[in-house]
Amino acid sequence: MTKVRFTITMSVDGYIAGPEQSAEDPLGKGGLALHEWVFPTRSFREMTGEDGGDTGLDDERLRAWNAGIGAHIMGRNMFGPIRGDWGDESWRGWWGDEPPYHAPVFVLTHHAREPLEMEGGTTFHFVTDGIEAALERAADAAGDKDVAIPGGASTAQQYLRAGLVDEMDLHVVPVILGGGERLFANLDGRPSGFECVELVSSPAVAHFRYVKGG
Amino acid sequence: MTKVRFTITMSVDGYIAGPEQSAEDPLGKGGLALHEWVFPTRSFREMTGEDGGDTGLDDERLRAWNAGIGAHIMGRNMFGPIRGDWGDESWRGWWGDEPPYHAPVFVLTHHAREPLEMEGGTTFHFVTDGIEAALERAADAAGDKDVAIPGGASTAQQYLRAGLVDEMDLHVVPVILGGGERLFANLDGRPSGFECVELVSSPAVAHFRYVKGG
Repeated sequence: MTKVRFTITMSVDGYIAGPEQSAEDPLGKGGLALHEWVFPTRSFREMTGEDGGDTGLDDERLRAWNAGIGAHIMGRNMFGPIRGDWGDESWRGWWGDEPPYHAPVFVLTHHAREPLEMEGGTTFHFVTDGIEAALERAADAAGDKDVAIPGGASTAQQYLRAGLVDEMDLHVVPVILGGGERLFANLDGRPSGFECVELVSSPAVAHFRYVKGG
Repeated sequence: MTKVRFTITMSVDGYIAGPEQSAEDPLGKGGLALHEWVFPTRSFREMTGEDGGDTGLDDERLRAWNAGIGAHIMGRNMFGPIRGDWGDESWRGWWGDEPPYHAPVFVLTHHAREPLEMEGGTTFHFVTDGIEAALERAADAAGDKDVAIPGGASTAQQYLRAGLVDEMDLHVVPVILGGGERLFANLDGRPSGFECVELVSSPAVAHFRYVKGG
C-alpha cells in the first residue's frame, strides 16, 4: 500500500523557507542554510552525480528515505517563480537539466502544461484538478513505493489538513530564520494522530520521525 | 560576569505552552506533555525531594543547567493566573510550599507586592519597574552564577528583543501542540548573533544550545 510521506527540513523557529522568496532567492533570505546538512552527504552527492561525501546518520536517513520513494508531489511555487500562465514554457525548474528527483514529479497548478521530461528519470507532470487527483496519479506512478511531498509550505498544509499524510520526517536544524514560510500554520488545529517513533540527531540536524497511529 | 540564559522547552511546532491557558490548565491544553522529558530525570526528582530517577543525557543537561543558575526572572502569568491587583495575596505560585527553584525568583508585574519567602530557598520578588531593573536585581542576587529566564513567551520575547540574552538552551520535544504560545514570534525579525554550539538528543528531546557570538 502506497503511503504519503513528508521529508521536510525546518528551522528551529519553524520555517521551511526564509522571507522574501524570489527568482534569485528561491528559498528566501537565509533559506539555503536549512539544507546545509544535506549537501555534504554521500547520498546527496550521488543524486547530483558527484563522488565522495560523508556517511553516517544524516546520510543513512537520506538514503533510506530516497530508496522508498517512487513519485513526488510539489507545489507550483516550489517548481518555479512563474505565476499565472506558463508563457513560453522555457522555465524547466530550479534544478538544471538533471533534477535530483529521478522519478515522476506532480506539480500542483491551475495552469495546464504538457509533461516535461528531464534527464535522469525526472518527469514533471502538471496537475490542474486538485490535491486528491495529484495523489491518485502519483500513487499509480509510485507502484510499490511511496509518494513524497517535499513542499512548499502551502502544499504540505493542504495535505495535512486533508488528513492524507501517513508519515512525516521532520529534519530540524539549528538555524534561526526569524521569518518566512511556517510549516505548522494554517492547519485549523493540530495535525492529529501522529506518533513520534524516532528522534535522533547529528551535530547538524535533529531527525523527528512520525507515523500516523493505527 | 553573570550571563542571562534561557532554558526553554518547545514543541516541534514552536509552542512553549498549549492553547487555552487557565487556572486549571496553567500550561494550556496538552502543554504538560512538553515537560515529560524532565519528570523522570534524577535531577528533577532531587529538586522536588524525591529519590531515584533516570540518569543519562537529559539528566546531565538539566543538572549542569541548574548548577549554574543563581536567580530566575519570570513573567507574572508564569507565576499565577491572577490578573490586575494581587487581591488578598493568597496566591503563592503553582508549585506548592516548596517550589523547584531554590533561588530568588523575580516576577515581572505592574502590581507591587511584598517578597514571598517559600520553603527550600525560593523567594519570589515582585518587580514593577521593568525588565532591565529586574535583570539588575537578579544579577546582584545571582552573584557568581547566571540568571535564568524560564518564561513565559512574552517575557522571553521581551528579553530577546532587548538583546539581553547571552545563551539559549532550547529543548525541542516531538509533541505537536497545534496552538498556544509561540516562543519565536513578536521578535521584529531574527534574534541575531546566536550560534548553535551543540545539538544532542535523547529519544525524548533534542537539546539545541546557543551562545551569543563574540
